[in-house]
Amino acid sequence: MVILVLNCGSSSAKYQVYDWDAKDILAVGVVEKVTLGGSFISHKVKGREEITIQHDCPTHTDAVDFIIKTLTSKENGVISDMSVIKAVGHRVLHGGDKFTKSVIVDDAAMAAFNEVKDLGPLHNPANIMGIEAAKKVLPNVPHCAIMDTAWHQTMPPESFLYATPYEWYEKYGVRRYGFHGTSFLYTAKRAAVLLGQDPYKTNLIICHLGNGASVNAVKDGKSFDTSMGITPLEGLIMGTRSGDADPAMPFYVMRKTGMSPAEMENALNKKSGLLGITGQYADRRDIQKAALAGDARAKLAQDMEAQRVKKYIGGYLATLGRVDALVFTAGVGEFAFFIRKKILEGLEGLGIVYDSKKNDLACTRNTETLISKPESKIPIYIIPTDEELVMTEDAYALMAGTYDVHTKFTYSFQSKDYVNKGRAEGLKEELKKKPDLQSVIAVPK
Amino acid sequence: MVILVLNCGSSSAKYQVYDWDAKDILAVGVVEKVTLGGSFISHKVKGREEITIQHDCPTHTDAVDFIIKTLTSKENGVISDMSVIKAVGHRVLHGGDKFTKSVIVDDAAMAAFNEVKDLGPLHNPANIMGIEAAKKVLPNVPHCAIMDTAWHQTMPPESFLYATPYEWYEKYGVRRYGFHGTSFLYTAKRAAVLLGQDPYKTNLIICHLGNGASVNAVKDGKSFDTSMGITPLEGLIMGTRSGDADPAMPFYVMRKTGMSPAEMENALNKKSGLLGITGQYADRRDIQKAALAGDARAKLAQDMEAQRVKKYIGGYLATLGRVDALVFTAGVGEFAFFIRKKILEGLEGLGIVYDSKKNDLACTRNTETLISKPESKIPIYIIPTDEELVMTEDAYALMAGTYDVHTKFTYSFQSKDYVNKGRAEGLKEELKKKPDLQSVIAVPK
Repeated sequence: MVILVLNCGSSSAKYQVYDWDAKDILAVGVVEKVTLGGSFISHKVKGREEITIQHDCPTHTDAVDFIIKTLTSKENGVISDMSVIKAVGHRVLHGGDKFTKSVIVDDAAMAAFNEVKDLGPLHNPANIMGIEAAKKVLPNVPHCAIMDTAWHQTMPPESFLYATPYEWYEKYGVRRYGFHGTSFLYTAKRAAVLLGQDPYKTNLIICHLGNGASVNAVKDGKSFDTSMGITPLEGLIMGTRSGDADPAMPFYVMRKTGMSPAEMENALNKKSGLLGITGQYADRRDIQKAALAGDARAKLAQDMEAQRVKKYIGGYLATLGRVDALVFTAGVGEFAFFIRKKILEGLEGLGIVYDSKKNDLACTRNTETLISKPESKIPIYIIPTDEELVMTEDAYALMAGTYDVHTKFTYSFQSKDYVNKGRAEGLKEELKKKPDLQSVIAVPK
Repeated sequence: MVILVLNCGSSSAKYQVYDWDAKDILAVGVVEKVTLGGSFISHKVKGREEITIQHDCPTHTDAVDFIIKTLTSKENGVISDMSVIKAVGHRVLHGGDKFTKSVIVDDAAMAAFNEVKDLGPLHNPANIMGIEAAKKVLPNVPHCAIMDTAWHQTMPPESFLYATPYEWYEKYGVRRYGFHGTSFLYTAKRAAVLLGQDPYKTNLIICHLGNGASVNAVKDGKSFDTSMGITPLEGLIMGTRSGDADPAMPFYVMRKTGMSPAEMENALNKKSGLLGITGQYADRRDIQKAALAGDARAKLAQDMEAQRVKKYIGGYLATLGRVDALVFTAGVGEFAFFIRKKILEGLEGLGIVYDSKKNDLACTRNTETLISKPESKIPIYIIPTDEELVMTEDAYALMAGTYDVHTKFTYSFQSKDYVNKGRAEGLKEELKKKPDLQSVIAVPK
């Protein structure tokens, strides 16, 4: 039996095939340029080289169809036929406040996703198309929606409300929703394992730093506050998103430039953030290269990015009162040691003391690492995220009828002995090249 | 010789007359309903009851004229004639990034204020009218502008820039300016006196909480970061202003409601904040009364307000690294012990330990108080602000040619022995009624 997870964007369809019995990933890949012409699939089977195949996909249905064909093909396939797929998990950006957990997608769920389409205009319409496409191609299995917002539904009103007219909340759902919930769920549960603590007595600050980025304050194992808002624009400085800014600022710029509201939203989402500051780079590796080469605005972008994260760490320390661990995750959080360094420098007064050498060593997705000094009151972990595993386990459990909200459900990775097979193999290889990595590997207490 | 300070709003003109030789306030007052019809002056002379006189003021010039008439009148006057006024200090909300200190208003300064009129639409036009009016009435003395933004011009770019297209900064001055600078200057200097420290080696977090409210991170005696932005909308939850919110949120609401950009800006500035949450109250006393009577939304508004301040305190602790004192000031910061309590509860982990009994006692403008427990790593002071004194000293020094930017200038209140005569008298009276207050009075170290 395999579980398929899908993450459909406006012009892409990512997938992962998980062998439930062997507890291992069989294949991962992505169809790119869906609907745009010139589409192709990048497909990676365990133990083999990644391959690329051109195949036109004018619609998302074509893309899902082609994924299934590739998975069942003689040459590149990993399953005999599509009947071995027993459930599909779909990533859905925005579930509004209707869902506190993953669900099997029925008409009511589809209607709810359509209702909040407006709140995630860059992602939600594509997520919905992906579900519809997959339902056509695989009509006989449960399709499950795993929402980025569900994890955050435990936030109290003082965290989720804006100080705007109350009727905006009542009539239009104007409130903080938060995103990256699946990643926060995974890393929060793993952090409790590493700390050897009851997850529901664990307070955490988790920095999910990728192209999109947000911070989560976790209180007693549940989301208490987060930096993203009604949309994924608020909070941290991201690749192309501004994050926090004076809500009056866009109106001033519109008056000065004649920009329309739509143009302004686009500029804040796609032309701001690190790209806006540097004028040319959104990727942290490019920014680091430029900063090292003396580009003042690249250096400024890094300082601004780090200062914003620092502020959230301090802010959540203040509202949580006690914090058991600081966690970094996602691409930038896992690999960009130079950004982490800027974030962590000077936090000693707050009881957060990082080890500069350990921080430099810890650049991997293959293992969890601990980069704080022993005297740090608050340990600092890097926990490579695994949203696909959460999606897979949710989809399986929904199909099997064993699923429930995360506070009443236990994931495989909540065990001290949990091992991600692919990562364990990857770690072995990595340690051969970089034996020092051994010294930072985190071990559950 | 007296110095007159003026603070002109769109329909009001506040004033204070200071006897430079006696170092004492002679009179304070306000003309209200300027330009609206039915104008009147409330005028308080030292040692006498406040009086009110009806007098129509169709223009700001009429209002300034009437202030001078009142100040020189036989019955209610405090000066023989207007020739004893040797300088006038005007409060100006927004000076943009052209001014790092107060200035004598010449044509170039007026042009600069007009340039940034757009950035403070609620205040700047009235400030400008006030200066023009006073120049007409008192043409032979220097008119000085004391700007709320000047103090914050020491902020580094990583604090003052937004992560938006860099050209918005270059072409339109899109950046954080910060406000309440005159109040932060006063309280920062006084905090250094109370701490017995070199002001330029002192780090502070100052919460100026009034109807408008902002927080200032002070590093080595200079503004390092602040919560208000390009306009006074950003940051804390205020009486009617939203403070921080997802910059995409207003656009979503505009799409849902058909509101225009102007209507949205108005709603964020005048219908949001505590008024938006409670639906009826902007004044903290009303909210406290309602909360005590069981109004859930009033309680929620208080929780939200306090949580927002907490976040800024933690955030600035993280970016400053070391903080020598936490300071509260302005109406709410000085009197609303119930809000301070909510802010300070649970900050023990950050080294901020308040004394609940002392906090309850410290509700006065007549003295500086210390409300932290002895074991608190970071002392908590309440320092009643005195923006008028800063304005008076700036105006005097500008006239006398002894003025310079605050880092090269020493104010009278930077002395350990400084005494505000009016407050000292007030304190005597207050202590008769409330002798316990003695136990929280702050004494310079």
